Amino acid sequence: MGQRNELFATGEEVTDLEVVKPVPLNAEAPARALDAPFTSPHFVRTNFDIPQLGEGHAFEVGGAVANRLRLDTEALRALAPSRTVAVTLECAGNGRTALAPLPEGEPWERGAVSTAQWRGVPLSAVLSPAVLRDDVQELVFFGADGGEFARALPLEKALDPDTLIAFEMNGKPIPARHGGPLRLIVPGWYAMASVKWLARIEATAVPFEGQFQTERYVYGPGAPVTSARVKALITSPLEDARVAPGELEVAGWAWSGSAEVVSVEVAVGGGDSWVEAELEAPLGRWAWRRFRARLRVDAPGRQTLRARATDARGATQPPAPGWNALGYGNNAVEVVTFHVRQA
Amino acid sequence: MGQRNELFATGEEVTDLEVVKPVPLNAEAPARALDAPFTSPHFVRTNFDIPQLGEGHAFEVGGAVANRLRLDTEALRALAPSRTVAVTLECAGNGRTALAPLPEGEPWERGAVSTAQWRGVPLSAVLSPAVLRDDVQELVFFGADGGEFARALPLEKALDPDTLIAFEMNGKPIPARHGGPLRLIVPGWYAMASVKWLARIEATAVPFEGQFQTERYVYGPGAPVTSARVKALITSPLEDARVAPGELEVAGWAWSGSAEVVSVEVAVGGGDSWVEAELEAPLGRWAWRRFRARLRVDAPGRQTLRARATDARGATQPPAPGWNALGYGNNAVEVVTFHVRQA
Repeated sequence: MGQRNELFATGEEVTDLEVVKPVPLNAEAPARALDAPFTSPHFVRTNFDIPQLGEGHAFEVGGAVANRLRLDTEALRALAPSRTVAVTLECAGNGRTALAPLPEGEPWERGAVSTAQWRGVPLSAVLSPAVLRDDVQELVFFGADGGEFARALPLEKALDPDTLIAFEMNGKPIPARHGGPLRLIVPGWYAMASVKWLARIEATAVPFEGQFQTERYVYGPGAPVTSARVKALITSPLEDARVAPGELEVAGWAWSGSAEVVSVEVAVGGGDSWVEAELEAPLGRWAWRRFRARLRVDAPGRQTLRARATDARGATQPPAPGWNALGYGNNAVEVVTFHVRQA
Repeated sequence: MGQRNELFATGEEVTDLEVVKPVPLNAEAPARALDAPFTSPHFVRTNFDIPQLGEGHAFEVGGAVANRLRLDTEALRALAPSRTVAVTLECAGNGRTALAPLPEGEPWERGAVSTAQWRGVPLSAVLSPAVLRDDVQELVFFGADGGEFARALPLEKALDPDTLIAFEMNGKPIPARHGGPLRLIVPGWYAMASVKWLARIEATAVPFEGQFQTERYVYGPGAPVTSARVKALITSPLEDARVAPGELEVAGWAWSGSAEVVSVEVAVGGGDSWVEAELEAPLGRWAWRRFRARLRVDAPGRQTLRARATDARGATQPPAPGWNALGYGNNAVEVVTFHVRQA
């Protein structure tokens, strides 16, 4: 990656990402970088400049509450025991370049998805001492980035014990580019819900109508993007890989925001030649699952491979992308092209 | 291309192709190889082994004719003056890998299209001495490849003065892999109509129902693939190119089987920001047209580029591929992704 220096002028740890836009920083992982056992490079998606908040940063809780709060990381940690949750986060625009017609917006390919261990305090432990008014419907989360990024969560999801205010990512303080020092983590939802640089939480009895709730991150009018659709990513073979004829080792990840992945099928070539892959034990309720398959590819030349995940609710990946004007939620079956060498 | 040796064990001239399948040989040109002024590498598409026929090969004319003929190249050339026609040939399956769901069939990407100067005798000069019966509707052309590849042409297209029985490609005898020594050339139609290794022409009063007419190379029942749909190919910038910020030189080819290309628009990014490109003088009535544009790309990072051709009949490229079970005729607007360096 010749782009490391451009990317991490901040002196933060270098990771293996491809820059989509340097300012404000947007970067995704190439599929090869995601073919790792657990801790993978993590995409970065920012709408504005990354705020450098420092360790003492505090967030406020207000709106329809009995008690307004102001908490820094230390005060947050004192509220309740911390939990660590493995969460797959996917950018809602991941796969946008595969939509036709091509929508406007960042041209994400396939790597705006990753999994990390997030450690934090359940959001419910913060809401409890604030005491929500009886008519509260939603919690609205504001980031400290200049543009007032804000997203709403329905009360039920906000109270899920796995919805965290996180202060650690993979065992270390959350880097600024990933929303540190404090980031909301909403497992199972596309990543725009996991508001970075958490600055303010507002309880409200009326639906929030901020621009990132009603104009951006929507499938259409009145249809905000929410939970992540079921999807599989092939990490082996890689696009354009050259492999020996015979047994082909296939591997990848599958995830779904609304239920456990229960099946991944793979197919060499077009048509309906699907074969069931093996699923490894889940990394956690909200994390992607490794799938593996061994297929035979005897004919030399260019070959195609697809993978299709299905979750416990029966949701599966559509064969073609569902189009929407802003290009969100593409979970269509993807095609990887590789080459079988002559024996 | 590490695949040259695999490809051209025949000792024929090496060209810059990527193998899709070595046996029977199928290969396409990478876009970079098509960014040339005129004589580009030419894709190879075979359904069976390539016959090695030798110079003395003759073809027959029979069926509903008054006079049966048998002609070798020398006899063919004696029949009428030769003509040279620049013809863009595109495989009907070109772009198949962009269709979703992925159909069965060779996984062509974008390079199963090229242009060559074909020299030959008009087919009409062969049909004239054979004397067609009054009720003849179609001519059927059989290849000498083992599998009896055969395709029909309506009489009107067969009599077009630019429909040739060709013996030279780009000034030299036609290589075996491109159908030599004698190949039918049907300008404006997808390349399956330009039957290679011409062995027999049969005049018929009833519609031909061979497998390559009714089961393969069809959009559906009763809908054989015929003329090539309007389409543009971007050859510069190439996929994944890294370019300097500022002025971007865009170039490519546009073609249409049914009418002259009269407009190519290009767009950076998604949405509807189309800009008219300049068209160079046509290489000929049946050949692709070079387009060029200068655009500005100032924002560093990943960018997308599209091109959209329109022909004199008003036909234009659809924003998304039209799907059919065998994956033919994909002329949707394509997306090239490139990277703008930081200044």
